[in-house]
Amino acid sequence: MKDQSPNSWEARADAHSFYGFTDLPTIENRGATVLTHGRGPYVFDVHGRQFLDANSGLWNMVAGFDHAGLAQAAKDQYDRFPGYHAFFGRMSDQTVMLSEKLVEVSPFESGKVFYTNSGSEANDTMVKMLWFLHGSEGHDQRRKIITRKNAYHGVTAVSASMTGKPYNSVFGLPLPGFLHLTCPHYWREGQPGETEAQFTARLAAELEEMILREGADTIAGFFAEPVLGAGGVIPPPEGYFQALQPILQKYGIPLISDEVICGFGRTGHTWGCEAYGFVPDAIISSKNLTAGYFPMGAVILGPQLTQRLQAASEAIEEFPHGFTASGHPVGSAIALKAIDVIMNEGLAENVRRLTPYFEAHMQRLLENPNIGEARGKGLMGALEAVQDKGSKTPFAAELSVSERIANTCTDHGLICRPLGQSIVLCPAFIFTESHIDEMFEKLEAALKQVFREVA
Amino acid sequence: MKDQSPNSWEARADAHSFYGFTDLPTIENRGATVLTHGRGPYVFDVHGRQFLDANSGLWNMVAGFDHAGLAQAAKDQYDRFPGYHAFFGRMSDQTVMLSEKLVEVSPFESGKVFYTNSGSEANDTMVKMLWFLHGSEGHDQRRKIITRKNAYHGVTAVSASMTGKPYNSVFGLPLPGFLHLTCPHYWREGQPGETEAQFTARLAAELEEMILREGADTIAGFFAEPVLGAGGVIPPPEGYFQALQPILQKYGIPLISDEVICGFGRTGHTWGCEAYGFVPDAIISSKNLTAGYFPMGAVILGPQLTQRLQAASEAIEEFPHGFTASGHPVGSAIALKAIDVIMNEGLAENVRRLTPYFEAHMQRLLENPNIGEARGKGLMGALEAVQDKGSKTPFAAELSVSERIANTCTDHGLICRPLGQSIVLCPAFIFTESHIDEMFEKLEAALKQVFREVA
Repeated sequence: MKDQSPNSWEARADAHSFYGFTDLPTIENRGATVLTHGRGPYVFDVHGRQFLDANSGLWNMVAGFDHAGLAQAAKDQYDRFPGYHAFFGRMSDQTVMLSEKLVEVSPFESGKVFYTNSGSEANDTMVKMLWFLHGSEGHDQRRKIITRKNAYHGVTAVSASMTGKPYNSVFGLPLPGFLHLTCPHYWREGQPGETEAQFTARLAAELEEMILREGADTIAGFFAEPVLGAGGVIPPPEGYFQALQPILQKYGIPLISDEVICGFGRTGHTWGCEAYGFVPDAIISSKNLTAGYFPMGAVILGPQLTQRLQAASEAIEEFPHGFTASGHPVGSAIALKAIDVIMNEGLAENVRRLTPYFEAHMQRLLENPNIGEARGKGLMGALEAVQDKGSKTPFAAELSVSERIANTCTDHGLICRPLGQSIVLCPAFIFTESHIDEMFEKLEAALKQVFREVA
Repeated sequence: MKDQSPNSWEARADAHSFYGFTDLPTIENRGATVLTHGRGPYVFDVHGRQFLDANSGLWNMVAGFDHAGLAQAAKDQYDRFPGYHAFFGRMSDQTVMLSEKLVEVSPFESGKVFYTNSGSEANDTMVKMLWFLHGSEGHDQRRKIITRKNAYHGVTAVSASMTGKPYNSVFGLPLPGFLHLTCPHYWREGQPGETEAQFTARLAAELEEMILREGADTIAGFFAEPVLGAGGVIPPPEGYFQALQPILQKYGIPLISDEVICGFGRTGHTWGCEAYGFVPDAIISSKNLTAGYFPMGAVILGPQLTQRLQAASEAIEEFPHGFTASGHPVGSAIALKAIDVIMNEGLAENVRRLTPYFEAHMQRLLENPNIGEARGKGLMGALEAVQDKGSKTPFAAELSVSERIANTCTDHGLICRPLGQSIVLCPAFIFTESHIDEMFEKLEAALKQVFREVA
């Protein structure tokens, strides 16, 4: 299958790419997929093959791969002012306007924005902000960060430490002081006979026990994705944030909502925290922020953290932190356009419109005896493969079931993402019913083929 | 001076920007500088003021602020394929071509490339790679990172820990296990009567003592900028890397060259390591890589680290690391063009041509009794202000001498950077003799004015 000739794109990719988050046996057998262009939600490779991308790139290309308005916003800004930083109190006009817009569409009445180039950097920055804040307020020992198992917050050493994935052990991570609570996945983590409400109460009690065990005065902050994304699209159990937030407030622990995936429309709401009825102390944004057209992340501070961090900075006359491309003028112009496209040009509305149709397909696939759970929120979902549905027994790891399903889909022109034993779907916001039909038709054929082979 | 009306750009910037690396008293007095566009090496603000940017943005806008070819490369790629990732063995054709190009222009005979969005992320990634590598080879305890005081490697918690700046203490950084050697600054750190060669020998001995004291089997790697950039443009003393590299090799410690500032022409060579005659084990690149037109960083692994890291990854079937925008197609297309513009369209040549003229101006300013040192390499330099030249006594910190010089320059239409007690100059590679003249004329006037006030 793999083109072995030395000048093939596959050989050229192998020769000089140090692949990340890539199954190397798959590359060994099939070769890299080298892409040249896109049309709507489809991408095309060097061999002319067409794929419907059910991943939206990496959750982020929500306006598709050839959005004229976004490309035009980028091009206009490249003609106007193609690059600058935001150090020394200098920044582009686009950056000022984007900060206004972000606070305007945030759940906060007021706030301030700090820019990074990725969600990883934004989470890493937020941790540094919390360490700085607590230190400035005389609480040097408030350094521990609480997240959840299966959470994904990025790949810098600190944001990887926040990420609750076993694979980080190969780096000797997490660093000390990064604590992980139970993954809030009722279907998998709920105990026999436990109701969803009881599960939520148990997780809240676990949080409080952790705080008391570690000492509240050693905890810097709590970070959560409203819906765990790369953990396998896991919505929280009912009442989860309502149960946890008062405990965090009781012990003076800021609640940070990592909205890198949920933010800007994925759940059918502007923010995931809106979908679940809570207001965090700060928001981490990236991905949809530019619809994938530019690397950008943002920390959006709510009013209280703004005021406290501002005071801490004024006390030393400077917040000594910043990235060269923080608030890049082209990224800012693209983000302004992306927010407008998502919120005012029908994309967010399309997510809400399509969600019932998407969910109906998910429920239909749940009838498959090897699909244990169909879960999701808005236009993202996961189907979890099981060998035995009643006992929720997974397939043997060495069968690489989800990898095989994804590869079979690729052979039929559908890109979807294997994650643990589940298949994740996060279509672009420009999908139509017909794209949804194509996606599920190809996925269902792949499921049947692979389950026939392994079951 | 500051426009206080509520709808002024200054007020709008203040309202929603959490400023980083910004002197807050200066903002309080003067307000933010909000920029709208650029022309060649000049930028323009919302009030129509024009500034010659002696910083090249932040060392990076080396082709100026309106390079038609770079903008066209960006625009063409936005029309062709405006975004994708490099996970799961999928990537754009532009990314494959850029990796080929980077290895081709590197000092390595072969190698592989991993992409990030910034120099911070690239250094952070390199640390994770080293931890992963040593762990995989059975040396879990090889985790300490050696850098130098005054080094700058970024702002993620780990790259800030590598950075040898006192300001990081406000975050409770460095993290444990990040060690800092003496800054290789002969003028400031050399002992009375010590020759430059003796100074180098002493720093080499210090490195070996640190390795022996800590235990060679606890050291993961050594990172160095060939010329310290944000430390104040500090070239190494003679024979520095030739003295250190054999010691690192003796104890199996990789040498990583952080070429974020030096790389792609700043020193008059493609790489800073070429300027100083050594071949590192890996290169960290960013900034000039895209001439500031896109956020991008790269780890370029030399042949030995490529082979060892590839083996480590194959052993677990995946290198579990990657950023959403790693190898972004637009960034890749821009970087391909930027490398071509710098290396083949006269920019690198212009750096070499202008360097003697730049240096002559620097030497002339050294005649000022309050300039203690004029140092640099290629088209970057620093002038260090002193109260007393003979004893190298700095001005009192509360005089904020360099900040005052920079603000006075701004008033006269020149942007330059205060760094400690020095003024840093790093002109764009498109400067002409006339731009050099303008820069030094404005700087000299500001020096005279401020030294008259404080001396």
